[in-house]
Amino acid sequence: MSHTLGQLAAKVQGVVKGDSDLLIKKLGTLKDATECELSFLANSKYQNQLASSSAGAVLVKTEALAQLVENAIVVSNPYLAFAQLSHLFVPPVQCWSGVHPSAVISPKATIADGVVVGPNVVIDDDVNIAEGCAIGAGCVIGRGVKIGKGTRLYPNVTFYHDVVVGEACIFHSSAVIGADGFGFAPKEGGWEKIDQLGSVVIGDNVEIGASTTIDRGAIENTLIGHGVKIDNQVQIAHNVVIGDNTAIAASTAIAGSTKIGSFCTVSGGVCIAGHLTLADNVHITGMSMISNSIAEAGSYSSGMGMEPTAKWRRTVARVRRIDDMAKQFLQLKQQVNKFLEKVDNK
Amino acid sequence: MSHTLGQLAAKVQGVVKGDSDLLIKKLGTLKDATECELSFLANSKYQNQLASSSAGAVLVKTEALAQLVENAIVVSNPYLAFAQLSHLFVPPVQCWSGVHPSAVISPKATIADGVVVGPNVVIDDDVNIAEGCAIGAGCVIGRGVKIGKGTRLYPNVTFYHDVVVGEACIFHSSAVIGADGFGFAPKEGGWEKIDQLGSVVIGDNVEIGASTTIDRGAIENTLIGHGVKIDNQVQIAHNVVIGDNTAIAASTAIAGSTKIGSFCTVSGGVCIAGHLTLADNVHITGMSMISNSIAEAGSYSSGMGMEPTAKWRRTVARVRRIDDMAKQFLQLKQQVNKFLEKVDNK
Amino acid sequence: MSHTLGQLAAKVQGVVKGDSDLLIKKLGTLKDATECELSFLANSKYQNQLASSSAGAVLVKTEALAQLVENAIVVSNPYLAFAQLSHLFVPPVQCWSGVHPSAVISPKATIADGVVVGPNVVIDDDVNIAEGCAIGAGCVIGRGVKIGKGTRLYPNVTFYHDVVVGEACIFHSSAVIGADGFGFAPKEGGWEKIDQLGSVVIGDNVEIGASTTIDRGAIENTLIGHGVKIDNQVQIAHNVVIGDNTAIAASTAIAGSTKIGSFCTVSGGVCIAGHLTLADNVHITGMSMISNSIAEAGSYSSGMGMEPTAKWRRTVARVRRIDDMAKQFLQLKQQVNKFLEKVDNK
Repeated sequence: MSHTLGQLAAKVQGVVKGDSDLLIKKLGTLKDATECELSFLANSKYQNQLASSSAGAVLVKTEALAQLVENAIVVSNPYLAFAQLSHLFVPPVQCWSGVHPSAVISPKATIADGVVVGPNVVIDDDVNIAEGCAIGAGCVIGRGVKIGKGTRLYPNVTFYHDVVVGEACIFHSSAVIGADGFGFAPKEGGWEKIDQLGSVVIGDNVEIGASTTIDRGAIENTLIGHGVKIDNQVQIAHNVVIGDNTAIAASTAIAGSTKIGSFCTVSGGVCIAGHLTLADNVHITGMSMISNSIAEAGSYSSGMGMEPTAKWRRTVARVRRIDDMAKQFLQLKQQVNKFLEKVDNK
Repeated sequence: MSHTLGQLAAKVQGVVKGDSDLLIKKLGTLKDATECELSFLANSKYQNQLASSSAGAVLVKTEALAQLVENAIVVSNPYLAFAQLSHLFVPPVQCWSGVHPSAVISPKATIADGVVVGPNVVIDDDVNIAEGCAIGAGCVIGRGVKIGKGTRLYPNVTFYHDVVVGEACIFHSSAVIGADGFGFAPKEGGWEKIDQLGSVVIGDNVEIGASTTIDRGAIENTLIGHGVKIDNQVQIAHNVVIGDNTAIAASTAIAGSTKIGSFCTVSGGVCIAGHLTLADNVHITGMSMISNSIAEAGSYSSGMGMEPTAKWRRTVARVRRIDDMAKQFLQLKQQVNKFLEKVDNK
Repeated sequence: MSHTLGQLAAKVQGVVKGDSDLLIKKLGTLKDATECELSFLANSKYQNQLASSSAGAVLVKTEALAQLVENAIVVSNPYLAFAQLSHLFVPPVQCWSGVHPSAVISPKATIADGVVVGPNVVIDDDVNIAEGCAIGAGCVIGRGVKIGKGTRLYPNVTFYHDVVVGEACIFHSSAVIGADGFGFAPKEGGWEKIDQLGSVVIGDNVEIGASTTIDRGAIENTLIGHGVKIDNQVQIAHNVVIGDNTAIAASTAIAGSTKIGSFCTVSGGVCIAGHLTLADNVHITGMSMISNSIAEAGSYSSGMGMEPTAKWRRTVARVRRIDDMAKQFLQLKQQVNKFLEKVDNK
């Protein structure tokens, strides 16, 4: 996995300053990189680390910055270039190739040539897996699932029946796609299950984090657009629709039938209620509670940050009585105004 | 999976208006259903969709509503009827039947005739699985587990040893039942594990969502009542007790030894502290923080909904100083009252 | 699993009062224990249960307390002693021993003698598992993983490649260690994945709960110290560092690159933002939102507890207008003060 600085520069349409033949074996941070490592400066805040860095070379934005180090690649977007180059340094993920003999594959499934199917994978009837896919050990692929080209499932992922997945997606371990939405009709003495007859349809270039769950729709499908990135432990309920290129951080939950626009970012720990609509380009900060639709692009927040517990107790006690305080305040204000009016009129 | 309108009406004690022989192949929404689909009108808010719907037939509450469409089933509770009919339209979940040869089953386990055991299932000593159960691929059933009639486990569920499950339950993928409760005694330089010697006992007609975890008790058992419905990614800690027919939405966490009554509903993203007692018929709205017991039935809430981030910053800054503001307010009020008293006394 | 009271006392350096030969078969609570069970009194709040308890014997702190029951072990820390004795009453977790024939193990892996490898386990190239380990059914261990002595993985755990784990750790089912951190560079029309080239390094005596996810680092490693205890459904993002003996309760999420000190406790449902530093001995109460670093040891909190929904609505409405109220208050105060000054000056 070694590349010369010149080769790396070519991959990102950058210009080498210094030794084009320098051999780069790893990527590293400015702070810790060694002489065979390439680092990057994406945020001018860290510019003072350039001089002291032991990195063999650095991705930088300008020639002026390049002159502060021995070897550099000048490129318009060093962070994006770093991301692109990261693909060259990924070690092999698993040793298996082809279809492992322990996999249990229905004779009615269609698996393209060259697909990697790991040990103990289970693939049910009428599944269709396109070329270039890799299915990790222990994954279970339900009846009728379709998976597009070049998609990777890490081990122990579960797809329920009839889920449809696009090309070049990544699913991390323990993700569960297509479990039943949480739908019950109240009845005398309990709940009647509403069987969930829709499915989940996922676009291209989607990444789904470890232990994330995306439920199948009640009648229609749950829909995840192209380029959507979802972190770990996220819950997507039935009939949610997520627009293209929206990114959702860990431990967020989105309730049923909510529609989220394109190019949104949702931070971690957020809860979004059901049956809402969020516009495109909405950004939600961490741990917010979203109980109303959002019609305009922009940043939205809720929640109070922490205080020392003793001070927090006083704050909470006051907030609980805020309605009372507001009423008393109004009364006082009226009293004062009335008095001042009287005085003025004298 | 086709049924005539007459057959469907008979299943729900409904009355057909229109063509009893109409063949229904699917269920659909009023908005999108086609002529071979049955839809429903459960909420009068959507009544205006009746006229424009292309649904072949609609479940409605009254004859007056039935007259607005060509074919209908009149039934006292259309939503419940829809739920009941949904069971007739479920496609086959998996192609396996009987015990798959790849399953690893202890000779000391007892599996009733006709139980479906999927590929790569692992069943330990002294497990007892009653008739009509289906165990999905990759499930691991620990030593001594008992599972009642007609219960289904979707793939990759894990039951630790000695868990007891009732009849007609559903467990979704990646659920983990019976892992150790989080119990440690502080000691010099760290923590001493308290081995968790209780188990988990689950009633009949319970549904447990994907990636939900229910811990085994420390000494006594964790108890889940009959008819309880738990959504995805819910955490139930050791020694929690949940009353019959309580429903808990996704991403909620319930801390140790808390007792929740019957017929409660807990929305998503809620956290309930440990050692509390919640009465029957308590309803908790989404993302609430419950740190005290609740003795009376009713609806309870906490948390602030979102605001545009700039406005939220001002709100938060003010709330952090509310204790100070309240003190100043009190002072001003006393000042004013004293002055007004003085004036009055003149 | 029976032990005499004398044997148990010796294990915890305690002194028997009563019958040393009494046979103890189980541990129990004061309230429910029977005559063959040992209970404990750790909290003086429950002292009144001593007299009425049917426990065969009780762990107590003083001789005075021992005199209230027939049989006792007097020990300086009854709760710790109870934890230590709990280890003696754990039933066998699984019936497998040795390496199960269904396990798929790379010939390039090194498994110490006596390691238990359950059914359907998958172990990739260059894995090294030390003596005394037990790997539960269905676990998948990625290429190059190292696992120290005496560590146990419950079923269906996934380790990605190159994860390093210390000695005497416990991983509960569906935990995922080493999945990709959530890293993307924005680009025209979407996101470029940043391949996550670091790994996860975990110390000794660590316990990781069911469905907990710990992501691999972007460049450097994610680091979990010795003696760390993490509950279920916790999300640890890339490059987080957790100090020794810190305990983190369920459903908490910690965002990328945050450093948490040693001997901290984080309650359930907490969200901690990225790139923060928390000092040693910091304690966070349940469901707090931590968006700033914490430099001093102590207890920190945020969030409002629940109120009846109708009252909560009024509170929320007032808090939303608090900025306005504060401004009006300031105005009134100035008005009053100005007037009073004028009056005083007359």
